Amino acid sequence: MSSTYGEILKLSIFGQSHGPAIGVSLDGIPAGLPVNIDTLQSFLNRRAPGQGDFATPRKEADKPEFLSGIVDGYTCGAPIAAVITNSNTRSGDYDNLKDCPRPGHADYPAQIKYKGYQDVAGGGHFSGRLTAPLCIAGGLCKQWLEIKGIRIGAHISSIAGIADEPVCLDWISPELDSIQTEFPVVNTEAGQKMREAIAKAKAEGDSVGGTILCFITGLPTGLGNPMFDGIESKLAQILYGIPAVKGVEFGSGFAGSELRGSQNNDPYTIIEGSVRTITNQAGGILGGITTGMPLVFRTAIKPTPSIAKEQRSISLKNMEDQVLSIQGRHDPCIVPRAVPVIEAATAIAIFDICLKDGYIKG
Amino acid sequence: MSSTYGEILKLSIFGQSHGPAIGVSLDGIPAGLPVNIDTLQSFLNRRAPGQGDFATPRKEADKPEFLSGIVDGYTCGAPIAAVITNSNTRSGDYDNLKDCPRPGHADYPAQIKYKGYQDVAGGGHFSGRLTAPLCIAGGLCKQWLEIKGIRIGAHISSIAGIADEPVCLDWISPELDSIQTEFPVVNTEAGQKMREAIAKAKAEGDSVGGTILCFITGLPTGLGNPMFDGIESKLAQILYGIPAVKGVEFGSGFAGSELRGSQNNDPYTIIEGSVRTITNQAGGILGGITTGMPLVFRTAIKPTPSIAKEQRSISLKNMEDQVLSIQGRHDPCIVPRAVPVIEAATAIAIFDICLKDGYIKG
Amino acid sequence: MSSTYGEILKLSIFGQSHGPAIGVSLDGIPAGLPVNIDTLQSFLNRRAPGQGDFATPRKEADKPEFLSGIVDGYTCGAPIAAVITNSNTRSGDYDNLKDCPRPGHADYPAQIKYKGYQDVAGGGHFSGRLTAPLCIAGGLCKQWLEIKGIRIGAHISSIAGIADEPVCLDWISPELDSIQTEFPVVNTEAGQKMREAIAKAKAEGDSVGGTILCFITGLPTGLGNPMFDGIESKLAQILYGIPAVKGVEFGSGFAGSELRGSQNNDPYTIIEGSVRTITNQAGGILGGITTGMPLVFRTAIKPTPSIAKEQRSISLKNMEDQVLSIQGRHDPCIVPRAVPVIEAATAIAIFDICLKDGYIKG
Amino acid sequence: MSSTYGEILKLSIFGQSHGPAIGVSLDGIPAGLPVNIDTLQSFLNRRAPGQGDFATPRKEADKPEFLSGIVDGYTCGAPIAAVITNSNTRSGDYDNLKDCPRPGHADYPAQIKYKGYQDVAGGGHFSGRLTAPLCIAGGLCKQWLEIKGIRIGAHISSIAGIADEPVCLDWISPELDSIQTEFPVVNTEAGQKMREAIAKAKAEGDSVGGTILCFITGLPTGLGNPMFDGIESKLAQILYGIPAVKGVEFGSGFAGSELRGSQNNDPYTIIEGSVRTITNQAGGILGGITTGMPLVFRTAIKPTPSIAKEQRSISLKNMEDQVLSIQGRHDPCIVPRAVPVIEAATAIAIFDICLKDGYIKG
Repeated sequence: MSSTYGEILKLSIFGQSHGPAIGVSLDGIPAGLPVNIDTLQSFLNRRAPGQGDFATPRKEADKPEFLSGIVDGYTCGAPIAAVITNSNTRSGDYDNLKDCPRPGHADYPAQIKYKGYQDVAGGGHFSGRLTAPLCIAGGLCKQWLEIKGIRIGAHISSIAGIADEPVCLDWISPELDSIQTEFPVVNTEAGQKMREAIAKAKAEGDSVGGTILCFITGLPTGLGNPMFDGIESKLAQILYGIPAVKGVEFGSGFAGSELRGSQNNDPYTIIEGSVRTITNQAGGILGGITTGMPLVFRTAIKPTPSIAKEQRSISLKNMEDQVLSIQGRHDPCIVPRAVPVIEAATAIAIFDICLKDGYIKG
Repeated sequence: MSSTYGEILKLSIFGQSHGPAIGVSLDGIPAGLPVNIDTLQSFLNRRAPGQGDFATPRKEADKPEFLSGIVDGYTCGAPIAAVITNSNTRSGDYDNLKDCPRPGHADYPAQIKYKGYQDVAGGGHFSGRLTAPLCIAGGLCKQWLEIKGIRIGAHISSIAGIADEPVCLDWISPELDSIQTEFPVVNTEAGQKMREAIAKAKAEGDSVGGTILCFITGLPTGLGNPMFDGIESKLAQILYGIPAVKGVEFGSGFAGSELRGSQNNDPYTIIEGSVRTITNQAGGILGGITTGMPLVFRTAIKPTPSIAKEQRSISLKNMEDQVLSIQGRHDPCIVPRAVPVIEAATAIAIFDICLKDGYIKG
Repeated sequence: MSSTYGEILKLSIFGQSHGPAIGVSLDGIPAGLPVNIDTLQSFLNRRAPGQGDFATPRKEADKPEFLSGIVDGYTCGAPIAAVITNSNTRSGDYDNLKDCPRPGHADYPAQIKYKGYQDVAGGGHFSGRLTAPLCIAGGLCKQWLEIKGIRIGAHISSIAGIADEPVCLDWISPELDSIQTEFPVVNTEAGQKMREAIAKAKAEGDSVGGTILCFITGLPTGLGNPMFDGIESKLAQILYGIPAVKGVEFGSGFAGSELRGSQNNDPYTIIEGSVRTITNQAGGILGGITTGMPLVFRTAIKPTPSIAKEQRSISLKNMEDQVLSIQGRHDPCIVPRAVPVIEAATAIAIFDICLKDGYIKG
Repeated sequence: MSSTYGEILKLSIFGQSHGPAIGVSLDGIPAGLPVNIDTLQSFLNRRAPGQGDFATPRKEADKPEFLSGIVDGYTCGAPIAAVITNSNTRSGDYDNLKDCPRPGHADYPAQIKYKGYQDVAGGGHFSGRLTAPLCIAGGLCKQWLEIKGIRIGAHISSIAGIADEPVCLDWISPELDSIQTEFPVVNTEAGQKMREAIAKAKAEGDSVGGTILCFITGLPTGLGNPMFDGIESKLAQILYGIPAVKGVEFGSGFAGSELRGSQNNDPYTIIEGSVRTITNQAGGILGGITTGMPLVFRTAIKPTPSIAKEQRSISLKNMEDQVLSIQGRHDPCIVPRAVPVIEAATAIAIFDICLKDGYIKG
């Protein structure tokens, strides 16, 4: 595994779904940054399971215990470490998972890579549960970025092909907080249709995917280090570390590839004495560097691979086809819970870039 | 800048468009690998300018001079360094570029980041010309991967919204070499329509973008190091280092986000005694690890920002709006020339992963 | 802070002396390696406090609790995380340490660097206590290296200028285990004199330092990656992360700088069909690469800075001189307890090099 | 190989002794830093061969040609690349070096590591000649540090056991430039004895080694990132990349290990309103962080392994003993020419730390 990320900050995530605990170490953080535990807990609750019809009913408080790095409510310069104790620890027999890999999961490649020694209980280190420690680290970075006026928000831009409206690169919610709900959409009518699509899929023992739009406001112009540590590179690297992310596009992205240059170029103008672009097809990034416009990108989240429906798989032992039925309850759609995870990953990447570029001092 | 990439291999790209030379250092390469200069030159020629109506007529031989790392046709273990001397060196006055930034280019954010000290001549280090040294390094890695039976190919999957057909994740051209032409498409009829769209845009002083599909065959199961050094993360980081790339999706990607889990999961089966999936929606990657199926991804290339049409810009000195007309000849579509660049970046990332995972021995 | 180390393996140490817990995350470890907890505990006990007259009487079991990465006695490929709960947690008023820095400690530079936010209780993250999680990670690497026949040993080569005898680069104890005691010396008579020197210093409210010789046998020829990731570079980087290490020399080191080339060069010969050098002035490393001879190096450990004697210091608040008396009990000599710490750091570096060079497969 | 170094700056050295050229790429350097080519050339001349009786008479101008990164005398933010063309290019038959390894050189371990593919001509990438590009990068960093008032100096502290006097940690030459000569010593009488020792060794077909003391003044308090990226770790990593360095000690180092704590601790006091230590046994570093006192360290340089005297070696082909006579002229002592190399490596490490810690802005 390589569950570490960052150039100046050093993120390190550990734990397995059914192990004693999951956790995170976050090193390279300047001393003297305030930590608001309540704000962090609210952020973590947005990711926690059991919030609605669309989510798994398994109820588990994602309550971090800080082991180091924070003294009297401020970072002390030492690595910040936090753990969440698992209440659902390893039990029962998961060995059939080593024989009959679940389609769409990492079971089979993990079986080959880790030679059968991987922890299969609950998905082990591949479990979506590992996004909880990611959210601890990201939730802290989000707080610290806000001190500098940098705000990160995200919402569901589509589920099962039903689009939130408007999904506009130039528009940024003036009321960021109002969309940070358990089902974050801008257009509640579209949101209702999405919920129905989720319910329908669930009733049929199936699942749906979607896309998430994330934006960052308040960034200065000139952050990012091309060629290979530009904003897009740094963000994409961490975003693809989130299970189920299969696509990332910045600004007009794939749609922009169908446009003319005259349509996709953002004309410059002066607004209130500042340089601005009239449109934001670039998503706030040119040449890997921030333009000063809001940073906007979209990620594609695949439909939950764990479905109740029967699926074709194989027995690795017998090397023959085998029908698989996955037991237990699973999120028919992880998109809503993935929204804060995208924000967390983004906050970590942006905070690291701010440290590297000296915008936030170490 | 941060024009370095890699964990075991260390790629380092240097040079500016109109400086004395551009070049590359590639460290961490095992000794004893054969180097075929002719094959490399053929590969570089695919990227070189002046190949057709759709490309800039500036003719410049991209002929690398190797300074180190190769002795008697084999790598010697020392860093491989190569340079390409620039024939179009700095001349004339480019200072107006510091005042009036071109929309869609890095001019403005670079001006802020580098405080006006950046080399603006021909785009400096941001120039697409810097993909030539990337292709030197990538062309070598491609050769070495082929020794292990790993083949990388790419083709235009769309231009101006016109799709090559079939763009199929499960299908891989049995005749990889036949599509490695100056205008690499599978369906020549679609290709003809693309050429017409390019010609039309050019005639109107405009440009078009497109998408590129890249596939890698012959990869073993089990490569990649999640969470943050998984295959998608490593590839996306280097791909976003290529100018004009604004989107990357693996397998079914964004389209997959609209499917049901039962549609997007790839069922397992046994074919000729080997584990295979019936479909390849995952693009050959689950949990950041190769599945043994072909690795498939698509990148979005934005339309060339340099267009002849008048555009709205500003004067930074006077802080007022200003109309900009870009002189000179520019590719009305860089997608065809970007195809080998995508292959090169992919080869570098995959070779690095093979080294790290011990599949190719250091 | 930057308490992370490694290229393929990723070590991450966290915790403060008087925080809730100290711990370590060790990522990048291959799956399927056996873990012997008893052997590890014996190794940790060698570092633990309270073992003799020369050590602090504070008794604390350094018993790691593993949170992840090990399943049924084998590594599972996921990051290995372990914590040691602190029984001596933060209490009392340490704020005077922020005013009156202890000579020889990091108090003053930490006060400036961390702007007064650093955790001063018990030395915080600078405490020698943080070598316990280093020993957890190193103790595991040591086990895994032994499977490949690579053995690491160390002994006190001097204390207070009294040398162990023989300290010979060519000689390696055939009975490695016999010197791995609480006071590891080869010559027990010299050891007795060292103990007396420690006792004398202690009685006078003072402390002594010393040197440690470490050797590694069973290494293959050809490990290491010059110029800057050669064996010496990799070892020195981690060794200087151990508090109190102020010098590192390989082979004949400083003494070798006084010799002639004809004396310091190691002549080659053939012994039992293998290439060997007659002497080992190089300490088993030439050009940053292992020669196949035992790797030998020495580290200088400064005298414990915490002494009972009155010392000159200052008040930072009043910016005036002030006499300082350090209360509490402290090791009059940390050299004996530093021996396993040197071994641990060495094991981590060597294991990382073995992974990088493919000698141990990931 | 792994001839790259740095966290924010990225140094990459390439070339072989008898290849077409040697060179360096230095990435991550802020834009707008002035470059004085004359000062750089003077610095490079201090390292160049053929300066005195003690050095090899091979005369070769180390004149760098800059390919990128500098425009109109200022850094432009793009990677800085420079090459030095080799006048002595590959010729003749060096294949005997693959059979009969020179004692004290990397020949044998390189033969194993690189499987016989390494470039043996003139030592290939292991040649001391590769310190020329290191000096290009280091010479630039040295200039930029001086803008911030940080000055780096070094002198011979001993040759063949003859010590320069005083070698004092607390004393720093007020006239730094006066000792930056071709034979940099403080005490000219001691210098004369050293020259005689070199001449005597040379006459006998032998060589001598020595030690170099390096100091850095003007550093702010609080630089460095313990545990593993502290000042000592960062410096030692790069210093051990210099051929022939076999020991590094900071402050009192090995001598300090023989002292009492009361002798080795540096008492604090206030001098002219600033915090100072009365002595500087710590060499300006506590806990891996700068104290604000001059940074002082010493390196051990082994005697030149190339000697005219007959030596015992082997034939790898025949696996039997063989007498070796090394032809050609070689420095009987490389210590004088190593002085600027130590300064260069130090400048690179310190500049990188200043960038990382935001003391110099990117």
